[in-house]
Amino acid sequence: MLNSPSVTTQEFLTNLIQIVGEQRVRFDPADCWPYGYDNSRRHALPQWVVFALTHEEIRDIICLCNHVHVPLIPRGRGTGTTGATVPISGGLVLSLERMSCIRLIDPVNRAMIVEPGVTNQEVQIAAEQRGFFWPPDPTSAAFCTVGGNLAYNSAGPRAVKYGTPRENVLGLRAVTGAGEEIRCGSYTTKGVVGYDLTRLLIGSEGTLAIITEATLKLTPLAEAKRTLRATYRDTESAGQAVATLMSQPLTPCALEFMDRQAVTLAQAQGGVILPTGTGALLMIEVDGPAAAMEEAITQIKQAADNAGLLEIVAAHTPQEAAQLWSARKALSPALRTLAPKKINEDVVVPVSHLPALIGGLERLAREFAITIVNFGHAGNGNIHVNLLINPDDPLEMERAGKCLEQVFELVLSLNGSLSGEHGVGLEKRDFVAREIDATTLNLMGRLKAQFDPRGILNPQKTLPLNSLT
Amino acid sequence: MLNSPSVTTQEFLTNLIQIVGEQRVRFDPADCWPYGYDNSRRHALPQWVVFALTHEEIRDIICLCNHVHVPLIPRGRGTGTTGATVPISGGLVLSLERMSCIRLIDPVNRAMIVEPGVTNQEVQIAAEQRGFFWPPDPTSAAFCTVGGNLAYNSAGPRAVKYGTPRENVLGLRAVTGAGEEIRCGSYTTKGVVGYDLTRLLIGSEGTLAIITEATLKLTPLAEAKRTLRATYRDTESAGQAVATLMSQPLTPCALEFMDRQAVTLAQAQGGVILPTGTGALLMIEVDGPAAAMEEAITQIKQAADNAGLLEIVAAHTPQEAAQLWSARKALSPALRTLAPKKINEDVVVPVSHLPALIGGLERLAREFAITIVNFGHAGNGNIHVNLLINPDDPLEMERAGKCLEQVFELVLSLNGSLSGEHGVGLEKRDFVAREIDATTLNLMGRLKAQFDPRGILNPQKTLPLNSLT
Repeated sequence: MLNSPSVTTQEFLTNLIQIVGEQRVRFDPADCWPYGYDNSRRHALPQWVVFALTHEEIRDIICLCNHVHVPLIPRGRGTGTTGATVPISGGLVLSLERMSCIRLIDPVNRAMIVEPGVTNQEVQIAAEQRGFFWPPDPTSAAFCTVGGNLAYNSAGPRAVKYGTPRENVLGLRAVTGAGEEIRCGSYTTKGVVGYDLTRLLIGSEGTLAIITEATLKLTPLAEAKRTLRATYRDTESAGQAVATLMSQPLTPCALEFMDRQAVTLAQAQGGVILPTGTGALLMIEVDGPAAAMEEAITQIKQAADNAGLLEIVAAHTPQEAAQLWSARKALSPALRTLAPKKINEDVVVPVSHLPALIGGLERLAREFAITIVNFGHAGNGNIHVNLLINPDDPLEMERAGKCLEQVFELVLSLNGSLSGEHGVGLEKRDFVAREIDATTLNLMGRLKAQFDPRGILNPQKTLPLNSLT
Repeated sequence: MLNSPSVTTQEFLTNLIQIVGEQRVRFDPADCWPYGYDNSRRHALPQWVVFALTHEEIRDIICLCNHVHVPLIPRGRGTGTTGATVPISGGLVLSLERMSCIRLIDPVNRAMIVEPGVTNQEVQIAAEQRGFFWPPDPTSAAFCTVGGNLAYNSAGPRAVKYGTPRENVLGLRAVTGAGEEIRCGSYTTKGVVGYDLTRLLIGSEGTLAIITEATLKLTPLAEAKRTLRATYRDTESAGQAVATLMSQPLTPCALEFMDRQAVTLAQAQGGVILPTGTGALLMIEVDGPAAAMEEAITQIKQAADNAGLLEIVAAHTPQEAAQLWSARKALSPALRTLAPKKINEDVVVPVSHLPALIGGLERLAREFAITIVNFGHAGNGNIHVNLLINPDDPLEMERAGKCLEQVFELVLSLNGSLSGEHGVGLEKRDFVAREIDATTLNLMGRLKAQFDPRGILNPQKTLPLNSLT
């Protein structure tokens, strides 16, 4: 692990302890163990774990690792699903979970300055008290950190109207793999001085630099929100409704889709009652001025209506809205009861290709005899494709692997992308070259080398191995 | 100019003609002359001008220039104000104005694929026919190209609600300074595979790569729009109103400011009648569902009201709206009558610091005996600071130079940025190091070298000279 002949493992540990003190370093394998996994269920044991509290500590830790060539893996709360924080090269896991301070909330400038370890939910609660929110809202909001959200460019249902972290961050403070302290972006909502390193770091999965502070762009909470549920005979009709909804003026703040399998599951396992013959379902939310809500519901109902529509219901109270969401909420627990393991992909296609995607996935499910349940953020064309499998059945696992390859081929043939919000990490690293051409990947590899010349930051993640020089 | 001993000027010209044909190459100085200026009124004569029509031609031209070390300056319509397209190192100007095709309009996917030479206005017209618009709206929209908008990350009044090009582009096709053909971004509104080169290229002023195709993200046109004009006793009251407007839920789609000098000018030269004692003016536009407009006007009037408010008027018809805008529209022609030259800056500060900025500018105007007229996009804190000067008065020019330095110091002391939307080019290049630290600039210089190893693309622009390796 330690590639410097001049420093022993013991000396490295001593140096680490000099930076943060003994209390915030772990080296006993039993203590390090929990920091070796993420939500991909992959695991690798790190040699050390360190808890940083300040920008300066992070800088010193990076300089130390860079000096002695020790892999350094930044980590929030480990809720990622791609293995991006699993230390497969060993080395040091840098936990940022204790850097969870909200430094400033500034409603007039619609900005909030936070440390990377604050959870998404803590940000939302603090913002809400001033009448604002931060748009990215992954399902794991209660646990995941903002640093993680930035590392993966994680979004959620609201992205259809309000964008992803790349559209909702003003500036960053960070330390590169070479230990350089950089600042990028500005404290203003416009700014064109210098190259845009802010967005380059967002989504780079800790492979370029470690973010030590972020200035988030806040959005005012809408005055009112309304929820509708539309059920359709089949995917084609639901897909056509999504297309119509996205080409009319009123952009929903959530436009979620469930396919036939997902609907069946929610009904069978979740006790949800839907119209007979429901083959696809849309959850639609609109927000805006209270005075516009009735008209908005009329417009949405009109756009959602087509020959395949079975029923569309609008909630009048928060209780009714929760009732409508129950089909969607029942899904995740139901999935867990159905198969010991799911491979959860988050492919994305142009909205117009949603019916072709779902149709193709149904064909692949039959061809490979794999149950596939599809649901997700239809307004962005971002679908969570869940392959339900039994990891103890080697034949099924092999079929699932082949099926997955075909899923990716299908997505790329539809002008889509392998990941909408989960990121690449380890899970999709070896598929990236199917989406991005070799020239562009080579350039990305060279850029990585400028940030992290010795390749210590999160090695073997995000870019295909052969794109790194 | 030509740094390759193996190729003569004549051979370079022959090679260039081989790529595009004789009809699209200029080398007579009289023909090249008009391609040596931009709207900064700077000028330098290029040795050659070439008009490209395709991605492949651009690739071949870059490869040729890279091979023989000839400076290559991409250019749209020359409406930039910073000298970014002025060929101060001589070389070849690559005009993109003939690559003006709109390749695809796709309402369902809210996307439009365009060549870089299409004008902003042509994009807006085409989008409008499908019920959409592209948010960036610089004042020069009728003439400026989308390629130029992307190069500078140009915005305009709508950015306060709808963002800048960085928030409104899905993907790019481009050729780096080394002649590498790259694709970045995706055709979907979410996508996290690979590093974000899209935003890195946007705002890089043609110093990293030449954009050959852009996929723009379209936004649906709002159903209705209403215009209000608020006049205030002084800047402090107007600034306070801006702060209140930006911290309430209803984000205006334009929030423009005029200071006392601007108001006086519009009244004296433009024949506009405003309440007696008007010391500052806000133009406020709101858009959204028609059903919400009356309530929106009430909310805006409430937020805009404070002790310094003299009058607030809402237009009921497009004619009334045009009438309200007349004060703002009278300003630019009026400015031209007042002084032979204006130095037009576009600094940006956090919205909360607008009163401090305007107050500081008034102080500097007195101190340096320079007339300064301030107006601009208050909702983004982006103010156009106009120093009115006589270029034939060397003493005044010297005072203006010193004053400008103090303007920049003031802006940076208020946590602002030197440019909100005009960019850096030549005009602000030597001030960039005051805003961005040396470490970050050095990294930017190294990234530039990865895109453009021989430094042929738009040399001496955007980054301070000493940050380039």
